[in-house]
Amino acid sequence: MSEVRELAGRAQKAAVALANTSTDQRNRALLAMAHALVSRQDEILEANARDMEAARVKNTGASLLDRLELNPMRIKAISEALKSLSVLPDPIGEVVSGGRLGNGIWLQQVRVPIGVVAIIYEARPNVTADAAGLCIKTGNAVVLRGGSLAVESNLAITKVLAAAAVGAGLPEGCIASVSSTDREAAEELMRLHGVIDVLIPRGGAGLIRSVVENATVPVIETGTGNCHIYVHESADPRMAERIVVNAKCQRPGVCNAAETLLIDESIHEVVLPPILRALEQAGVTVHADDKTRALGAIMRVVPATEEDWATEYLDLQIACKVVAGLDEAIAHINTYGTKHSEAIVTEEYSAAVRFLNEVDAAAVYVNASTRFTDGGEFGLGAEIGISTQKLHARGPMGLAALTTTKYVAMGSGQIRE
Amino acid sequence: MSEVRELAGRAQKAAVALANTSTDQRNRALLAMAHALVSRQDEILEANARDMEAARVKNTGASLLDRLELNPMRIKAISEALKSLSVLPDPIGEVVSGGRLGNGIWLQQVRVPIGVVAIIYEARPNVTADAAGLCIKTGNAVVLRGGSLAVESNLAITKVLAAAAVGAGLPEGCIASVSSTDREAAEELMRLHGVIDVLIPRGGAGLIRSVVENATVPVIETGTGNCHIYVHESADPRMAERIVVNAKCQRPGVCNAAETLLIDESIHEVVLPPILRALEQAGVTVHADDKTRALGAIMRVVPATEEDWATEYLDLQIACKVVAGLDEAIAHINTYGTKHSEAIVTEEYSAAVRFLNEVDAAAVYVNASTRFTDGGEFGLGAEIGISTQKLHARGPMGLAALTTTKYVAMGSGQIRE
Repeated sequence: MSEVRELAGRAQKAAVALANTSTDQRNRALLAMAHALVSRQDEILEANARDMEAARVKNTGASLLDRLELNPMRIKAISEALKSLSVLPDPIGEVVSGGRLGNGIWLQQVRVPIGVVAIIYEARPNVTADAAGLCIKTGNAVVLRGGSLAVESNLAITKVLAAAAVGAGLPEGCIASVSSTDREAAEELMRLHGVIDVLIPRGGAGLIRSVVENATVPVIETGTGNCHIYVHESADPRMAERIVVNAKCQRPGVCNAAETLLIDESIHEVVLPPILRALEQAGVTVHADDKTRALGAIMRVVPATEEDWATEYLDLQIACKVVAGLDEAIAHINTYGTKHSEAIVTEEYSAAVRFLNEVDAAAVYVNASTRFTDGGEFGLGAEIGISTQKLHARGPMGLAALTTTKYVAMGSGQIRE
Repeated sequence: MSEVRELAGRAQKAAVALANTSTDQRNRALLAMAHALVSRQDEILEANARDMEAARVKNTGASLLDRLELNPMRIKAISEALKSLSVLPDPIGEVVSGGRLGNGIWLQQVRVPIGVVAIIYEARPNVTADAAGLCIKTGNAVVLRGGSLAVESNLAITKVLAAAAVGAGLPEGCIASVSSTDREAAEELMRLHGVIDVLIPRGGAGLIRSVVENATVPVIETGTGNCHIYVHESADPRMAERIVVNAKCQRPGVCNAAETLLIDESIHEVVLPPILRALEQAGVTVHADDKTRALGAIMRVVPATEEDWATEYLDLQIACKVVAGLDEAIAHINTYGTKHSEAIVTEEYSAAVRFLNEVDAAAVYVNASTRFTDGGEFGLGAEIGISTQKLHARGPMGLAALTTTKYVAMGSGQIRE
């Protein structure tokens, strides 16, 4: 039997037992996991040192090395995140709806764990602990499959977490990491229909595409964000500048950062130059259409191509287009956007309402930065990712996104006539 | 451009406009659709007559012919179903959660249509009108792909409904049926990622398997039901008999009918024979394990094989197995069941609680027939199908299952620090 199938099979068995653990048991396990990360940090740091060494041999870039590196301070932060999960309210067991049917059956729709959650990710080793913690909190077994660069760190973290969870009374096999980092192992995981209840890919567009193409298990797509800021003719110019610069520059590498600036033609000659200059000052390269370039406001500008409208730069780059008005802006966003986060800057009531209603995205904003699309900012307490699909969960996914429901019916001999 | 892509593209455009129609507009369209079905029934009945003729040439069986046949009474019933949809509460626009964030942003999570719903089905032509009605009620555009036997009827019904909807002010292209009934057309529909927002297959296990294997669009699996009735040693024998006979015989061809009877060894010699005799009297063939056969209670019995435990007969057949007790019953159900509807008959409190907690299914019952798993019985008002997956919707799916949500954020210049 392959490693993937074996781990998933054990996770499936564990899920049955996990579903019947109490809130207190799972919270105690989270605290034990948090404690173990720190008390056994030496083995994690040793494994991480091996990953770092291998990455250096491969001439990995500095920013990737920084993401990969663990140290006692970072381990402490990961441990604290697990502790804070333990004090969040437990969604499991919540009665979502209920009542007595006409025939006397007492029917309740109850929130229960999904079962086995698989997560394929490319990011930093802290995702390993975060994802395991979120799944244990919600009573799910988890099969993790991280990127090859962090494989030793991920396996060490998983080993420590799994031992702590089992030590705290949770079933064997409830947390597992796939050690094989080849493509076949990932594809096998995507195709374990009937074993994996949901697969959440966390990574770049290539990973998401591969999952959509290959998966037979239910998937929640996350993360791609080609977000727009549209400056309407009635916008407060200072507010527009602040929001554009924040949405682009505050953290350019994340999915809720802005990638395209749209601005109304009637005001672009006056309002756009200061915005472009502020972006230039922040180090942003502007991929500009003809009308923007004709302003000659800045140096750091390149001609925009059709491709730019669909590009998620995740970098200090932005596309800029002058539009005729609200209709063109909405049509452009609904054509090129990835339905993640979209904002209008306007002082006109009816433009705001139309934008909120007609733009199809997980989060739509009036007069605020797209950067707020985040589980923490939205008050969800924790976040497993940002769903860009419409099924099951949309936008930032908190603990409830890792649950499903079950109808519980208590009768007294009812039969259907 | 292929027919499928063209219809789906038109549906996608229609969905944008549909999402911004009012409840009143959509309800008026439903009434217009209901009216048109009756006023234009001649063309529908003519198309149906062509389907019936072609089916007879193919030597189609009597029960399938009966499902296919339309007549004025049946059209009237379909029309009435659309009318009753028009008076149900509209889920669109509901504020699911909301409030003012710490930074002053007013955030609301609002229920919105999913967008473009595709439905692949094998069943009677009434599904065409039902599915179209449910989608229009919830502001979704719909692309239908029915079975080849009913293709003329489906196209005629779609033509009438679409004309009525557009006549009532809904956008062109909001209701469409694919005329091509070959496999390629269905597979193309399954792979229109980014155009189709959800695909709901309604049909047998073969269809569901093909969709799971081929789809790149999000899918809601429906319908497969290998349901069990477990008679616990503390069961009231009369109640057990009534529930078993009802769950198996009241309508054997549906997904919530019972397919396996489990009974505790300690009582099987006394309690099982009357149940078997009642089943035999109702015309049921029993696929029985050795201990059941040893009772010699009935004539219509065949030896059960491993395959029987996993079979959804959808017929007057049932598998029967004597189990050691609650543990074996739960393990058997969690191994062979399809997580649809499962029932225990018991008078023992702790057995009931364990069954409800430990059996993993969309609906779990104590002392009631599995036949109640149904949108109408559960008070959902309408039903698009019964989900047997855990993502998005589980169990009977009402109008809310055809919606998603959108975060609407109203700010006053907030940026993220």
